[in-house]
Amino acid sequence: MVGLPTSVETVLKKLGFFFDSEVGIYVHEKTNIPITVFFDEEREELVYLDQVKLPYEATTWRTKDWRAAADPGIKGMIVRGSQAIGCAAGYACLLAAMEARQKAKNAEEFMKAFKDAVSFIKSARPTAYPLIWASDLALNAAEEAVKQGKSLDDVVASVKEAADFFLAADLALCWFLRQEGKKVIEDGDVIMTHCNGGSLSSSYGGHALGMIEEAYVEGTDLVVVSKETRPRSQGYKLTVWELNRAGVPVIIVTDNMIVSSFRRFGVSKVILGVDRVSRDGAVANKIGSADIAYIAKEFGVPFYYGTSYSTIDLKTERGEDIPIEERSIEEVTYPYVLEAQDRKRRGITTEKALDEWPPSNLIVDKHPPPRRKVSIYNPAFDVTPPELITAIITDIGTFKPAKIRELTPQEIEERVRSRLREWGLEPPARVVPL
Amino acid sequence: MVGLPTSVETVLKKLGFFFDSEVGIYVHEKTNIPITVFFDEEREELVYLDQVKLPYEATTWRTKDWRAAADPGIKGMIVRGSQAIGCAAGYACLLAAMEARQKAKNAEEFMKAFKDAVSFIKSARPTAYPLIWASDLALNAAEEAVKQGKSLDDVVASVKEAADFFLAADLALCWFLRQEGKKVIEDGDVIMTHCNGGSLSSSYGGHALGMIEEAYVEGTDLVVVSKETRPRSQGYKLTVWELNRAGVPVIIVTDNMIVSSFRRFGVSKVILGVDRVSRDGAVANKIGSADIAYIAKEFGVPFYYGTSYSTIDLKTERGEDIPIEERSIEEVTYPYVLEAQDRKRRGITTEKALDEWPPSNLIVDKHPPPRRKVSIYNPAFDVTPPELITAIITDIGTFKPAKIRELTPQEIEERVRSRLREWGLEPPARVVPL
Repeated sequence: MVGLPTSVETVLKKLGFFFDSEVGIYVHEKTNIPITVFFDEEREELVYLDQVKLPYEATTWRTKDWRAAADPGIKGMIVRGSQAIGCAAGYACLLAAMEARQKAKNAEEFMKAFKDAVSFIKSARPTAYPLIWASDLALNAAEEAVKQGKSLDDVVASVKEAADFFLAADLALCWFLRQEGKKVIEDGDVIMTHCNGGSLSSSYGGHALGMIEEAYVEGTDLVVVSKETRPRSQGYKLTVWELNRAGVPVIIVTDNMIVSSFRRFGVSKVILGVDRVSRDGAVANKIGSADIAYIAKEFGVPFYYGTSYSTIDLKTERGEDIPIEERSIEEVTYPYVLEAQDRKRRGITTEKALDEWPPSNLIVDKHPPPRRKVSIYNPAFDVTPPELITAIITDIGTFKPAKIRELTPQEIEERVRSRLREWGLEPPARVVPL
Repeated sequence: MVGLPTSVETVLKKLGFFFDSEVGIYVHEKTNIPITVFFDEEREELVYLDQVKLPYEATTWRTKDWRAAADPGIKGMIVRGSQAIGCAAGYACLLAAMEARQKAKNAEEFMKAFKDAVSFIKSARPTAYPLIWASDLALNAAEEAVKQGKSLDDVVASVKEAADFFLAADLALCWFLRQEGKKVIEDGDVIMTHCNGGSLSSSYGGHALGMIEEAYVEGTDLVVVSKETRPRSQGYKLTVWELNRAGVPVIIVTDNMIVSSFRRFGVSKVILGVDRVSRDGAVANKIGSADIAYIAKEFGVPFYYGTSYSTIDLKTERGEDIPIEERSIEEVTYPYVLEAQDRKRRGITTEKALDEWPPSNLIVDKHPPPRRKVSIYNPAFDVTPPELITAIITDIGTFKPAKIRELTPQEIEERVRSRLREWGLEPPARVVPL
């Protein structure tokens, strides 16, 4: 084992991981899928499975720098998906604490530098709730330790304890999520999914795909229909890559083939990952999720979200209140810039042809109000209203959307603690509240 | 004027076209949009606006060869969209007749060669009804002329008369369609469209976009939301290009932003082009049209199809009976091959990274039954059930879907003839029946 904290190591062993020294990462024996985040203690480096290089190349991305861990690490989607971002944020905070420890002369200086760093890390992606949650809890752990008059070394140790806990707990809770999820998956299912709400967006085996992969490797006969998910094509690239690692049969369709797939393949279930659940049981998830939900309703197909309890945001009252990140229009235009180059290279168009479409001088703004000539709209998420969701499957139970409102932070904490204890994990003080 | 047949020339003048010698094609004065097909009599060449090069380069594609006119001309989508394909097919048949005239010693030899050619031309695209319709009528015109004992020169002239008529009639009927369509377009409209059911898919100014462009240049305040339309991205490329030529403000979205666009921009109408209308009032159109229709129903947004009467196929009883073309999976994988190259070139991945995703050895079949590992489904069309369609706007009137069944070939022919006569066009015998 590459010097891992004991609790994480214990969980990895229990789950059946081995260290794949070729890729430089832990890989699950049965599904062949790697973990997405871990902290290499020997080299004091944060390690991400490099999801920017996937599916073309499976390799890792390493850093000692908390800024890089956040940007490009989180912001540039080297690590992505709400839970994986949460785990990454914990270790990014650890790197920040380690740097503050080096530079600070006292607790006050340490906390000032650490707070600034945490606030930078938190802002790397605006919609991912576990990012905020993990960062705040790492900060709490440090504040608590300082308040108790601990040495700065011990303060850093508290942050590390919190970060290790996020990863170990996420690994354990993803296991519970898979057990919940497998209750709804049946022999013969044709399951539509979108984006990558999968193992790759958790520490390992989480969200929508983890349960499908485990059901499949344990013998359930099923097929997945994976939507491309423009503009970043996580469905085409990441979901197909990860399902294929586990041997799950997968049919790729573009995003405008929802009705066609329902008709042609007889889609029997839709299961997607989650970015954030609001108190009213609405779900923010990758752009296009709501489109599937409305159509699934028309076809009478059950529509599930699969997620970690950490995406439940009881402080956000309604789905409409969830802020929707708008991303760069280059995500949308990128293939057409490549296409323009390719056409020139192949002589399909002349050298005088445009280098991009639409030309930059036609695109007036990435936030397009009416009355601009050509503009591009690129929201990262949309919100599915609760009435379109059959159930939200989580690691602490499966809930009808209307039941989310009835959850209290205390009840969630109790459920999480009891599951973690089953796995021999004892949360550090104040580490689970929502 | 570049030696055009009188009837076509008359119609072009009446509509306000000028010959743009830089592009080598007729362009409309007010909208700045070119015609898509014409026959250059001086050079005896069929000319297409080259839609494969759009939007990067606006140029024409010319041929004397009927095989090339069909493949790559029609099959390779240099000319595309049901009506434009119909006009192209007429002239492809003319080129075939001209070649048969050169080689044949008598009427029997001529008809044998011509029939084979027409059958090849008809098979260039399986779903486009006007392709079959125009090809059959060109064949009929020849058969009729032979039956009347005409000389082979006169038989070719009959085919030419039919082909010229298709183009002139389509130009005139698109005008009538625009007048129908403008009745539903209002100041302040935010109109969603998909693919390119536009001027570029007719001779000029037809389908869904022609009416929008004309309404806009005549002063109606409106905005269009254009969906990308993977895998060939006609919405991104052609629709945005053509709307921008006419100055219409346009917002580009990817195909999974239907619900988001409805919410954010307050889409007030959906207007799409048509590939084929069946007798039950169902419509086959570009893949993804049905997805919008189901969601528009949920949002209570009126959903229109705009089309030529020639896409009404009274012989096909139900939408489910319309054959759905499945196209090459390379259309889907193309951007990812370019991306793999680009990543290597920029050093984002190493030279050892994959050259494509998914690798060809994982893609088992383009017709994916369950139980294959990774497959890609690429249907060109889907079918919108009649109950989701507010109205089908055509050049011979606006119909509720249920009214399509009540139309008879005689009634359609009468309506077409009376409109054409208003424009001084007299159809050759037997040229309009359905």
